[in-house]
Amino acid sequence: MRELYSQRTSAEYLDRAAKVIPAGVYGHQGPAEGCFIPVQAFPKFSSRAQGTYFWDVDGNRFIDYMCAYGPNILGYNDPDVDAAAAEQRAICDCVTAPHTKMIEFAELLVDTVACADWAFFAKNGNDATSGAILCARAHTHRKKIVFFKGYYHGVSAWTQKIDYPGILPEDVANNLYVDWNDFDALSEVFDRNRGEIAAVIAQPYMHGNFADNILPAPDFWQKVRKLCTDEGTVLIVDDVRAGFRLDLAGSDHYFGFEADLICFCKALANGYNVSALCGKEFLKNAMSSLTYTGSYWLSAVPFAAGIACIRKMKEMNLPALLREKGLKLTQGLQDRAAKHGFDLHVSGEPALFYLRLADDPSLMLHQQWIANCVLRGVYFTNHHNHFINAALSDEDIEETLDIADEAFAAL
Amino acid sequence: MRELYSQRTSAEYLDRAAKVIPAGVYGHQGPAEGCFIPVQAFPKFSSRAQGTYFWDVDGNRFIDYMCAYGPNILGYNDPDVDAAAAEQRAICDCVTAPHTKMIEFAELLVDTVACADWAFFAKNGNDATSGAILCARAHTHRKKIVFFKGYYHGVSAWTQKIDYPGILPEDVANNLYVDWNDFDALSEVFDRNRGEIAAVIAQPYMHGNFADNILPAPDFWQKVRKLCTDEGTVLIVDDVRAGFRLDLAGSDHYFGFEADLICFCKALANGYNVSALCGKEFLKNAMSSLTYTGSYWLSAVPFAAGIACIRKMKEMNLPALLREKGLKLTQGLQDRAAKHGFDLHVSGEPALFYLRLADDPSLMLHQQWIANCVLRGVYFTNHHNHFINAALSDEDIEETLDIADEAFAAL
Repeated sequence: MRELYSQRTSAEYLDRAAKVIPAGVYGHQGPAEGCFIPVQAFPKFSSRAQGTYFWDVDGNRFIDYMCAYGPNILGYNDPDVDAAAAEQRAICDCVTAPHTKMIEFAELLVDTVACADWAFFAKNGNDATSGAILCARAHTHRKKIVFFKGYYHGVSAWTQKIDYPGILPEDVANNLYVDWNDFDALSEVFDRNRGEIAAVIAQPYMHGNFADNILPAPDFWQKVRKLCTDEGTVLIVDDVRAGFRLDLAGSDHYFGFEADLICFCKALANGYNVSALCGKEFLKNAMSSLTYTGSYWLSAVPFAAGIACIRKMKEMNLPALLREKGLKLTQGLQDRAAKHGFDLHVSGEPALFYLRLADDPSLMLHQQWIANCVLRGVYFTNHHNHFINAALSDEDIEETLDIADEAFAAL
Repeated sequence: MRELYSQRTSAEYLDRAAKVIPAGVYGHQGPAEGCFIPVQAFPKFSSRAQGTYFWDVDGNRFIDYMCAYGPNILGYNDPDVDAAAAEQRAICDCVTAPHTKMIEFAELLVDTVACADWAFFAKNGNDATSGAILCARAHTHRKKIVFFKGYYHGVSAWTQKIDYPGILPEDVANNLYVDWNDFDALSEVFDRNRGEIAAVIAQPYMHGNFADNILPAPDFWQKVRKLCTDEGTVLIVDDVRAGFRLDLAGSDHYFGFEADLICFCKALANGYNVSALCGKEFLKNAMSSLTYTGSYWLSAVPFAAGIACIRKMKEMNLPALLREKGLKLTQGLQDRAAKHGFDLHVSGEPALFYLRLADDPSLMLHQQWIANCVLRGVYFTNHHNHFINAALSDEDIEETLDIADEAFAAL
């Protein structure tokens, strides 16, 4: 049996951070995030990372199934991406006039992404989704946006919830909400708002937090696509989280349809700081008309990293590889659960699997099992999908299954 | 007399870019931006950069007074900042749990920035200003925001103009606009909206485009500060553009007052991709309560770069140096103008000077003079403030003055 991790220093760093940073650590790792219960099981700060691992400040090594919440797709410190970035860094990065790497990266995305006639670069996934909404409104001269309940499209006011701190009713006044996979409800919303819906925005499948992930129902996307076309509504796919893990041509391509606008970030450059909005030719003028830019949006180093990342993903036929690793892992986890009399429910795509222990309405048992894994060196999280990266080896998967087994035994 | 630059390749690259990127180049360098008239005088793409120079794709070297629109404060490819970043890059950058560099950077900012009790990091200047607005609304439970006409606070919908493409009346429904330096008008707006104003947001002085820049009137800031305190309104300083060029303790400190929230980006890490929102203790809980994060916000490389950048700026006593260089340059430019019978009006702070040829209501003469400079290797722009960086030498200033002289002669 493994010894449980000691995380004394982690707690000391968190105390130090809390003096000068709101909440000590914010975002996914923040204390408000229910994904990290019990809090003391999770390391708060990293000291280094390599491949599929990171180490915390106490020297504990974790097999990391969060992948920095998506950006780590080839492995931390991938040598090919890092070399391309370092080469560009020596030439220039953030300059008054953009480097020609911007053109190369746009050309590569247009070649790679099925629905893309053009690419527009920014920094956050949120910049891409917000740009898509502005573009759809500028093109259609309409206000309303349809969301699917359980969505996450970033942190700008238009996409937050009305009861979140700092958000005004005006921010979300033009938002319409429909249940995922309920095409009849979507049709009704279009009937009631005829000629007023600028865009439908959706993730390629429902990979929300605190709920089993749900793949699209048969023909759902094809019916949504036709409805949007018929009604002159822009169809936006938010592929920030799933992008490049399912299909290098876009997750819309994976599910057999074409988006009008598609948003990428995270896996786009293996952690280098860039996001992209790609779109159809008919929206290019609207996109050009926007007042939309930022100080670092044309920086060249992330473009060089993105080019190297996409080329390598193509050479590796990465989505098939991630699917294979994800299936091997999740099937192994279900076997180990069954051995101990537990029913582990796996949902979503294998490359972005979501876990839930069944027959556990309070979630306490699930959280205790996850904590047991984390304290033994497997970084899972409670109520968020996980991510597979290319550096995850068969040996890592075997070690994960052994630890999961111990963690079930300890329940 | 110098030969004029040929920019044949630049135009070819722009044609190629226009096929796959909306407008070919967007943002400041976009064709819609009136700062680049005549368009053919300005290079569209860079091939490399070093110190105070960048080179375009035709091999022309420019003494660059735009500094990537601010980020270049120590010189492109500063060896100390790049070494610190490379060292961190080898350890880790974007990881599931943030690296402890985040704490060090927050501690350094709290030590450096006079009004800062805490620091919150993001990617764009726009993330910092938008976070400040959310924080102010969350803290005050009020809706309205006061802007000073001529402002620029980023690209989110709340800060755009009602007639811009994609913007809705709802986005700006709670915005109030006052003339810069008009304290009586500001007081009246507070009288008419008593108990409803969440925040006043302002740049430290009015450095808008297409207009002479305007420093604060005597006591203006002190009166604004008192009014905000009396009315329970959060005072936000947008120091994204001017930050660290006037005063390392913040531009509020430079003008003798304390902001409640202050926004930094650009010069914060010499071009590495990070922004920061700093604030007073009484707003820390409100900031902690927000749903506000992004995939790359906790990345360690920009934190390491920012630490090295701030330390070096302190060692160099940078603001005094930039002021000295800016004064030398702008006084020299005015002398050369006078020699040719022109009146060159210089406004704003010397480290961020704004230029305008007087007695030129059509702006044609000014634009022609700027074009004459650009075509000879001095990168000025027409109707935007400029930026000084530490790598600008006395020889560079002399060469700039010689070129400006030739450019006046050619008018």
